[in-house]
Amino acid sequence: MKLKQLFLGATLCALTFGATANSVFEEPSDAIEYRQAAFSMIRVQIGDMGDMLKGKVPFDAEQFKHRANNAAALSKMPWEAFVAGSDKGDTSALPAIWSDNETFMKKAAAFQQYADELAVAAQTGDKKVIAKAFGPWAKGCKDCHTSFKD
Amino acid sequence: MKLKQLFLGATLCALTFGATANSVFEEPSDAIEYRQAAFSMIRVQIGDMGDMLKGKVPFDAEQFKHRANNAAALSKMPWEAFVAGSDKGDTSALPAIWSDNETFMKKAAAFQQYADELAVAAQTGDKKVIAKAFGPWAKGCKDCHTSFKD
Repeated sequence: MKLKQLFLGATLCALTFGATANSVFEEPSDAIEYRQAAFSMIRVQIGDMGDMLKGKVPFDAEQFKHRANNAAALSKMPWEAFVAGSDKGDTSALPAIWSDNETFMKKAAAFQQYADELAVAAQTGDKKVIAKAFGPWAKGCKDCHTSFKD
Repeated sequence: MKLKQLFLGATLCALTFGATANSVFEEPSDAIEYRQAAFSMIRVQIGDMGDMLKGKVPFDAEQFKHRANNAAALSKMPWEAFVAGSDKGDTSALPAIWSDNETFMKKAAAFQQYADELAVAAQTGDKKVIAKAFGPWAKGCKDCHTSFKD
């Protein structure tokens, strides 16, 4: 549990760094496009992994590893793109992202942590172990969308 | 050199796996959207790293590491989305991707390898070492676009 908190702390630091570093987005719309690209790619990973776990498509341990590695990497990417001014435009992001940024960033950190844990679980190739790690990560999407996505 | 060839071989195997595995894209347009999302995110990494190396923005070793890690992960992602039928639609992909797939996949594998090497170089924090590894990866974009992108 302490290790988990430490891990969460480290992820939060990384996130904070991302948020305070020089933004690479010239226009708010560039930031919106970037985070939407990341989320759309995350959806593909979650969809395929969910289908494998539900038995809609055959479970393939190698393919699952590939998806989980993609998921872990992608889960780190959208957050730097919630820059100031990108609450307006073609976005479903709710103002609470900026007005309650601390909660948002905590949820983002948890999401990254769960994705990392899923990637570790995927290395075992054991469907039961993997399913147990998949749940919290997949729930992380909904958990954040409830408060922060229109 | 032999190790490099072996590495390239391993990357090609991984690629081949990706290409032969069950496609996750219901429609060719989903595949096009996915690979365009990946490439657009790659462009953000390359832009920021290029700006840091050219001195347009201050060089930040931690930020560079973050970008290079993103680049290595993202460079592995677009290739599975060049599925059959996705040569038509809102895409700049040239037919040669499918008619000369072997060459395309070799270039894709080299691109991934260069990105991995850049991520390793970024760990040193040494701008000269990093710049040397950045060139081949950045050239990898153009090298592939010349033959395979409209």
